Amino acid sequence: MKTESTVVRNAQFIVIEGLEGAGKSSAIALVRDFIEKHTGQAPVCTREPGGTPLAEKMRDLVKIADETDPLCDEAECLIFYAARAQLIANVIKPALAEGQWVLGDRHNLSSLAYQGGGRGLMPLVSAISDATLKGFKPDLTLYLDIDPKLGLARAASRGELDRIEVQEIAFFNRARETFLSYADNDDSIMIIDASQSLAEVHKDIIAVLQNQAW
Amino acid sequence: MKTESTVVRNAQFIVIEGLEGAGKSSAIALVRDFIEKHTGQAPVCTREPGGTPLAEKMRDLVKIADETDPLCDEAECLIFYAARAQLIANVIKPALAEGQWVLGDRHNLSSLAYQGGGRGLMPLVSAISDATLKGFKPDLTLYLDIDPKLGLARAASRGELDRIEVQEIAFFNRARETFLSYADNDDSIMIIDASQSLAEVHKDIIAVLQNQAW
Repeated sequence: MKTESTVVRNAQFIVIEGLEGAGKSSAIALVRDFIEKHTGQAPVCTREPGGTPLAEKMRDLVKIADETDPLCDEAECLIFYAARAQLIANVIKPALAEGQWVLGDRHNLSSLAYQGGGRGLMPLVSAISDATLKGFKPDLTLYLDIDPKLGLARAASRGELDRIEVQEIAFFNRARETFLSYADNDDSIMIIDASQSLAEVHKDIIAVLQNQAW
Repeated sequence: MKTESTVVRNAQFIVIEGLEGAGKSSAIALVRDFIEKHTGQAPVCTREPGGTPLAEKMRDLVKIADETDPLCDEAECLIFYAARAQLIANVIKPALAEGQWVLGDRHNLSSLAYQGGGRGLMPLVSAISDATLKGFKPDLTLYLDIDPKLGLARAASRGELDRIEVQEIAFFNRARETFLSYADNDDSIMIIDASQSLAEVHKDIIAVLQNQAW
């Protein structure tokens, strides 16, 4: 096990994904510290949707829709991808080009899972994803897997349920199935069992990171 | 020639397209009056991008981008389509369903011509167009064709040049070629020679409208 690397690796884009209550926040803090320890520099941290001044305004647009002008499925999906394109062009790619690591709180897999799988819009989401991202994707995604019932119970106990979180449980089951399906078909997506204790989850995350040959 | 129809036709979505200085505004006024005369009701008039409260905010987003967070090509295109999806879902389709005619100042063909043809983003624009619109299109498009040099000279004489209009002439030539190419392959797009006198242009527009079997 190497705790200090003598080889400077190319900067990478690492993303944490997971349903509500899966423990993303503490996982992000852990991975952030790991990257800083191994590269000597804190990663650029992003959140989606948002992360640039314009992308944050796009995020706000989604939230101000009301019954007089309800946001249609297509517009919501396109806005999320507009924000993502903006974040990639003006934050993620420039950072990587300068050798800075990037740590993302959600990325494309969330759109595929929530809008595509959860809301049944996969043909739309998949087509827009392909056209917009043109193959750009994280070097590594840590998907924190949890049964929606357990995750939502955790999130509810913290008073963190917003619009998307009060959807029916079936929505989250479909989203979870989509996350798992993508992970099954992409070696860059690692599944972490987030139903374990925090200590065990963190141990698994560290094991995945160390396995990246630092 | 029928000037008064006794048959109530299904409401239609008619769009006016054309480069700057082609005479869209006066054509829209003419078609608006024609529809009102033949249906007894003024059409719902739309402009793009925009046309709903949220779509107008999306239009504003494109305009506030600056050098600190420049709008990338993908985000601009996605925002335009988000606004279009919103307009179709909350204005155009509901109006048509209620039997109201809709008259559009630009629609999808402008994105294909300007972003797709003019800026060379056709694969992106075309993919997003197909995924978003899923075959929805105007019943009739009147494309006012004009040589960009003549059109821009007209627009300049009115002091109407904004960001997109100060692009180089080659951009507008590519956009024009794209308009004409789509018109060649779609019977619902009629080419009007906008280099003629206003009286001749209007005569041609009325002839096309009357040919729709009122």
